[in-house]
Amino acid sequence: MAKNTDAARVPDSVTCSIERTLCVLGERWTFLILRQAFFGATRFAEFRDQLGVAPDVLSDRLGTLVEFGVLAREPYQEPGARSRFAYRLTPAGRELHVVLAALQQWGDEYLPHPDGPSMLRRVRDTGQPAHVGFVGEDGHEVALTDVTAIPSGAAGAGPS
Amino acid sequence: MAKNTDAARVPDSVTCSIERTLCVLGERWTFLILRQAFFGATRFAEFRDQLGVAPDVLSDRLGTLVEFGVLAREPYQEPGARSRFAYRLTPAGRELHVVLAALQQWGDEYLPHPDGPSMLRRVRDTGQPAHVGFVGEDGHEVALTDVTAIPSGAAGAGPS
Repeated sequence: MAKNTDAARVPDSVTCSIERTLCVLGERWTFLILRQAFFGATRFAEFRDQLGVAPDVLSDRLGTLVEFGVLAREPYQEPGARSRFAYRLTPAGRELHVVLAALQQWGDEYLPHPDGPSMLRRVRDTGQPAHVGFVGEDGHEVALTDVTAIPSGAAGAGPS
Repeated sequence: MAKNTDAARVPDSVTCSIERTLCVLGERWTFLILRQAFFGATRFAEFRDQLGVAPDVLSDRLGTLVEFGVLAREPYQEPGARSRFAYRLTPAGRELHVVLAALQQWGDEYLPHPDGPSMLRRVRDTGQPAHVGFVGEDGHEVALTDVTAIPSGAAGAGPS
């Protein structure tokens, strides 16, 4: 898949990919902006009104997501109005679905709302439930307790 | 599994589980503290020294993670020293492995470090690579494009 992100914007001193991702996502509003993008929001006013986020904060966070290639900014113009921008998920942005779903799933399980989950994940064709988990090379789920993280041996690898 | 989290601490007005989880995790230091906990850090000084985080920020974030049942605070005492606390992942905390792994995987793919990933996920017994993905009820991986999110019909559901 073509990489439309710009890895060079993250300092090389940050070797851990968790931390590299948080250079882009490490703020609560950013996750919520992305959530609305998955729900179909594309316009500044949609994000602002759906989230109740201050315009300067929204502008800043959208800028970061565009800068890193998670959203693409495309001009559009409605009749009689001035030209504006729409924000659309790039392929890299759409891959973040699994991150949002993992956050959602944990909240469903450990911080449940009294009325139950607000959203359900389903397999499109069958309507069967889908969840986020670890998967092995053979395409079968691997239990959480069977997964281990090991330093790759890359320069600067390891915890810290 | 016993829930050791305290869902009542999240306001009922927050219906989306992504947002509910971000009430606990919605800050960059929190993810990095959790990462160090997965790497085995348990003591205040370990988190502080490994992350270079200001003590007041660390104290605040550890407090939140304990409050919500992600970490458990246990007293310990070394000979001749005063009693201190160790912070250990609870079962709920360990389930966050999939969230951290999803963040890591996206960073590996879209914000790669010049030297490659610092950590690799492996199946413990076989050493085969493991990744994070969607899984259906039959335990088989489901492609990202085959997963859809639908409002559950619960009160207050939907993209607000």
